[in-house]
Amino acid sequence: MNFVSDNVVGASAPVMEALARANGGAMAAYGADEIARRVKERFAELFEREVAVFLVTTGTAANALALSSAVPPWGLCVCHREAHVIDDECGAPEFFMHGAKLVGLPGAGAKLDAGAVGAYLEGLPKSVKQMPPKALSISQATECGTVYRPEEIAALGALCRDHGMALHMDGARFANALVSLGCTPAEMTWKQGVDILSFGATKNGCLMAEAVVVFRPDLAESLAYRAKRAGQVISKGRLISAQLEGYFAADHWLDNARHANRMARLLAEGLMRLPGVRLAWPVEANEVFPVLPRAASEALRAAGAGFMEWTQASLPEGETIAADEALIRLVMSYATQEEEVRRFLQAASTALSRQAAE
Amino acid sequence: MNFVSDNVVGASAPVMEALARANGGAMAAYGADEIARRVKERFAELFEREVAVFLVTTGTAANALALSSAVPPWGLCVCHREAHVIDDECGAPEFFMHGAKLVGLPGAGAKLDAGAVGAYLEGLPKSVKQMPPKALSISQATECGTVYRPEEIAALGALCRDHGMALHMDGARFANALVSLGCTPAEMTWKQGVDILSFGATKNGCLMAEAVVVFRPDLAESLAYRAKRAGQVISKGRLISAQLEGYFAADHWLDNARHANRMARLLAEGLMRLPGVRLAWPVEANEVFPVLPRAASEALRAAGAGFMEWTQASLPEGETIAADEALIRLVMSYATQEEEVRRFLQAASTALSRQAAE
Amino acid sequence: MNFVSDNVVGASAPVMEALARANGGAMAAYGADEIARRVKERFAELFEREVAVFLVTTGTAANALALSSAVPPWGLCVCHREAHVIDDECGAPEFFMHGAKLVGLPGAGAKLDAGAVGAYLEGLPKSVKQMPPKALSISQATECGTVYRPEEIAALGALCRDHGMALHMDGARFANALVSLGCTPAEMTWKQGVDILSFGATKNGCLMAEAVVVFRPDLAESLAYRAKRAGQVISKGRLISAQLEGYFAADHWLDNARHANRMARLLAEGLMRLPGVRLAWPVEANEVFPVLPRAASEALRAAGAGFMEWTQASLPEGETIAADEALIRLVMSYATQEEEVRRFLQAASTALSRQAAE
Amino acid sequence: MNFVSDNVVGASAPVMEALARANGGAMAAYGADEIARRVKERFAELFEREVAVFLVTTGTAANALALSSAVPPWGLCVCHREAHVIDDECGAPEFFMHGAKLVGLPGAGAKLDAGAVGAYLEGLPKSVKQMPPKALSISQATECGTVYRPEEIAALGALCRDHGMALHMDGARFANALVSLGCTPAEMTWKQGVDILSFGATKNGCLMAEAVVVFRPDLAESLAYRAKRAGQVISKGRLISAQLEGYFAADHWLDNARHANRMARLLAEGLMRLPGVRLAWPVEANEVFPVLPRAASEALRAAGAGFMEWTQASLPEGETIAADEALIRLVMSYATQEEEVRRFLQAASTALSRQAAE
Repeated sequence: MNFVSDNVVGASAPVMEALARANGGAMAAYGADEIARRVKERFAELFEREVAVFLVTTGTAANALALSSAVPPWGLCVCHREAHVIDDECGAPEFFMHGAKLVGLPGAGAKLDAGAVGAYLEGLPKSVKQMPPKALSISQATECGTVYRPEEIAALGALCRDHGMALHMDGARFANALVSLGCTPAEMTWKQGVDILSFGATKNGCLMAEAVVVFRPDLAESLAYRAKRAGQVISKGRLISAQLEGYFAADHWLDNARHANRMARLLAEGLMRLPGVRLAWPVEANEVFPVLPRAASEALRAAGAGFMEWTQASLPEGETIAADEALIRLVMSYATQEEEVRRFLQAASTALSRQAAE
Repeated sequence: MNFVSDNVVGASAPVMEALARANGGAMAAYGADEIARRVKERFAELFEREVAVFLVTTGTAANALALSSAVPPWGLCVCHREAHVIDDECGAPEFFMHGAKLVGLPGAGAKLDAGAVGAYLEGLPKSVKQMPPKALSISQATECGTVYRPEEIAALGALCRDHGMALHMDGARFANALVSLGCTPAEMTWKQGVDILSFGATKNGCLMAEAVVVFRPDLAESLAYRAKRAGQVISKGRLISAQLEGYFAADHWLDNARHANRMARLLAEGLMRLPGVRLAWPVEANEVFPVLPRAASEALRAAGAGFMEWTQASLPEGETIAADEALIRLVMSYATQEEEVRRFLQAASTALSRQAAE
Repeated sequence: MNFVSDNVVGASAPVMEALARANGGAMAAYGADEIARRVKERFAELFEREVAVFLVTTGTAANALALSSAVPPWGLCVCHREAHVIDDECGAPEFFMHGAKLVGLPGAGAKLDAGAVGAYLEGLPKSVKQMPPKALSISQATECGTVYRPEEIAALGALCRDHGMALHMDGARFANALVSLGCTPAEMTWKQGVDILSFGATKNGCLMAEAVVVFRPDLAESLAYRAKRAGQVISKGRLISAQLEGYFAADHWLDNARHANRMARLLAEGLMRLPGVRLAWPVEANEVFPVLPRAASEALRAAGAGFMEWTQASLPEGETIAADEALIRLVMSYATQEEEVRRFLQAASTALSRQAAE
Repeated sequence: MNFVSDNVVGASAPVMEALARANGGAMAAYGADEIARRVKERFAELFEREVAVFLVTTGTAANALALSSAVPPWGLCVCHREAHVIDDECGAPEFFMHGAKLVGLPGAGAKLDAGAVGAYLEGLPKSVKQMPPKALSISQATECGTVYRPEEIAALGALCRDHGMALHMDGARFANALVSLGCTPAEMTWKQGVDILSFGATKNGCLMAEAVVVFRPDLAESLAYRAKRAGQVISKGRLISAQLEGYFAADHWLDNARHANRMARLLAEGLMRLPGVRLAWPVEANEVFPVLPRAASEALRAAGAGFMEWTQASLPEGETIAADEALIRLVMSYATQEEEVRRFLQAASTALSRQAAE
């Protein structure tokens, strides 16, 4: 019942096997290996077009590199005020962008609305005293477990085009969003105006495999150099490329994501049946955010469940968390077992009944 | 016969096995795993003192992070003019140090001499027009396959102390140098005045495992934040810690290094017996730098041998490479087989005989 | 009636005369001139202690340099959310601090309250995912024309001490705040815990003269280098030092500030007597922020008055600006003439009467 | 006899008068003043084309800003190894370029030769391990007082075009070079391929007035923001624009430069007539670099002459400075009086005779 995050588990079997297979023999270093070549072709197939792909070691690096290719040191990057890039990366984007500024805007369910972003952009003073906006970054799935619809992305894409900004997607949970929408990778990205993507695979079954996928060729030029100088070009590059080969084979990655999302729905449905529990946001990917009595939350922890209490929250209008309540985050992964979910629901039921009795 | 580098092979069996063992089950993310705790204790044992250890993904990142902890953006970092940090990292140190400057000094065999460095430091203008020296970086083993003696390191350490500079060691081939000297890790580092170390394990048997080891506590404060914001804190941290656990177990790492060094000596001795071949520098670790007729070098390549031609060279006084000669680099790894070495020597012998006959 | 800012006028006569006097003859360059030496002694006298002083060209540079000495690239700098450093300097602090982050907190009248800042600091997650707070920056006088009392500064100073943070004061309008409080420079700064000060003189009678004044010696080390590498060390340094000599002579600077503040009070009192006008904040220095009918504001502009409409506003609780109202900023300078103020009041009276009649 | 530099004197009378005239009255701040508008038009006239002009406070800032517009953080900037940008600016270019690297190449008389630079560029490894060259910076006049001929600049310009690099000219002594060549500003810059220019006026008669002049429009976009965030946009902008108006009026700037160059020739001719003195480089602008007996140099200093001993020297082939000799730099300015030159020559003659007698 460790639901702290989808990164508390190791790699899935097909990924580990691909890695073990690739370990033997001599191979060109620094990402010039044959597997990397194949994996990059696979990315092109998946996205139905030419793409530049840079394999990196962390989602933080992928995001920061992607943004640094689009935002000059004197530019502004707009994002949601609870975005991972502004809140959880210790200023990595600011470091890679050499002092460019992130501006966080509000939005329900950690989603940005094109109307609100547009109003913000219109309101910016036109003066050299203020840094000009150069990129917009959105998370798919979001930090609240919600998912942008393609048309919502398209509206943000159009806005970016109008303002000369690049559109970046932080796809740390790309696969979870993708299977949730049931669309193609292309339909969720460049067809709606996404210029550059952080493609995450670690949370969904790899040990460590992330990629920057570039749809606008002019953004690609600098990335090879930027990745190298950021210490992101590992010498035995097969480590990442082999994992991705295993990840993509036979749609393993989509299976993983479907499983995690299904576990989330299962958990959400179970929780909704319990009295005194409500969900802060709809469950659209692999994360569940219930609000429950604080005592119940503590009982669950005592019963061995692992999860995070969530403090920064773009709650829906009218929603508030009472002092004796807790908003918690439960993250399902490719490895979550149905039995764990049932055990958690049982424990929750017990905790809530006990509390009701008191 | 792929002698291009010691990073063209994968991980050794004990390392891969440790990784596979560690893959199962849930574990704290971002380096807070139990294995990391044990590995850090192991580092303390190895170095016979408290150390701060930061596990990172590449040698470039280890070097750049280490230097950034010691050199402010307005400082100078002195190194050998053929040092990896100045020549092969696409400006990673400059990026992490935020524009601090690397200055490369000459020195035979890619080694810096305390006398020469001291003279350089004395000659620096004392003015705000020039950046003040804040660190010295040395490579152990060096880029020419030579090894600093402990007393040479001590002399540089004393110099750094006198000038208020930190002493950094780029230990991408730490183990090879260590078994070459036959001393302890402590004797090769902090006991001689090394303040901060890039401890490399990837080249010597891991797939990807590097560490920054800090001996001066004041240099450690910033590194946790710096590593995070550089995208160097991987979420499934066990990937690195498990490898290192396998690497250190039963002195596997020393065995690997001894093997590679032995292969290098074997190769060097064989080459020395061939007419028309000389070594640019003594073979002190796992790299061999023969000078041979260019035609023979080409014949070897045609025979399937892989290696790099070496162009930047701190040749010993009086040594020159003729136009019809080539200086090449042959790197032995933990996985190099004696049979490969013999095959290479045989091919070299054939090539040289043929050339002599023409 | 140009009340757009206190920087729309040139230098006062004594300042220009000092500059003209200093122009002749040869003098050491790059700030090593004799006048600079005297001026630095004068700073020490004014602040009743040893200080390190760096003469620079703009308030933006003074602020950014000061903050860069206190905040590492991976640190957080807390300020008011309407502070000049976060709003009006095109990211200069982020540039000089190499990607450190500014966080803007709310506070009535553009003032930060020690209690609120303390609560914010306590609430910060302790994790390497978040940058640690390293400095607090306050403006004196503030962007709303209000002034911190010494005891308010002392409370913030104590808070900084508790959290290992430096306290920076942006003193672009230092003299105006000083004469408003009637205290000494020491009482308004280091005696209350200020560690580093941007001392502004340009707005109060110079053409271009700003200084970074350092009270914590460890913050001074880097500034000589930082200023040079920021292009802030002008070669004919007498340009700045001579102005400051004229500025300080015979308390000219205090006279200038007293005059500007008096004009502001005169203006404020006049405005308060007009129906339909209220002040957004108390007038404590040389800036007046009236709220008046938008039509009246337009009529004043048509009558030749120059001023800025103010949009970012830390309004007092309960205060709002109606759609048909305007909040404007009127800045008095050393050169503002009483007659201008009276003319403005007359025009305002006319505009308001006309509007009332309609 | 203060020949330490051309920045040891103040401003010339016409410049100071223009400044005094401009001081009165209210004027738009931050460079939006009317005088700035006129001065920018004047630049367009002088260069016979549209140019973007940014008025800044120091030559260091002008150089660093110019280079930052042309070189990305991951790029290389080639310059002469004695260039001011690499040697005397405390890393300002590295700061403004966010860690880009300067590479210094040799060349007689501090001049770069297109052939040598071309060979260097061809020899650069094509790999992401090495930063790609993005700009070339030359000084006109050079740090050795020599002057590039237009055809030499054209050759470097063509080379830059071929390699996708920008050509920057550090014109700290632009006017001295210009009148030396007798060509037009256009012929010395963009007509030969210069993309961006640091136009210096401080050394030649202003107190503080420098400009970045941009000939390639795409380089201009970022500079307004970069200048602001570097603290280079002074609020009372008339300070710089007024000086430049006085500087350009009635060809005052050219007169100043002609005078300084004439003083340099006079001094050089006098020195050449003295036994035991030779010139390290031809005198082509306003600097004279004699080699003379060290004893004579000391006697001159004792006689009240001010000058710098020059240690970094691109001496002509075959030229060496003996241990009992000194290479010194004597800089003439707009304010140098013929009488001073004669007095210096007299003192030199005396010193040399005395020495010869000993």
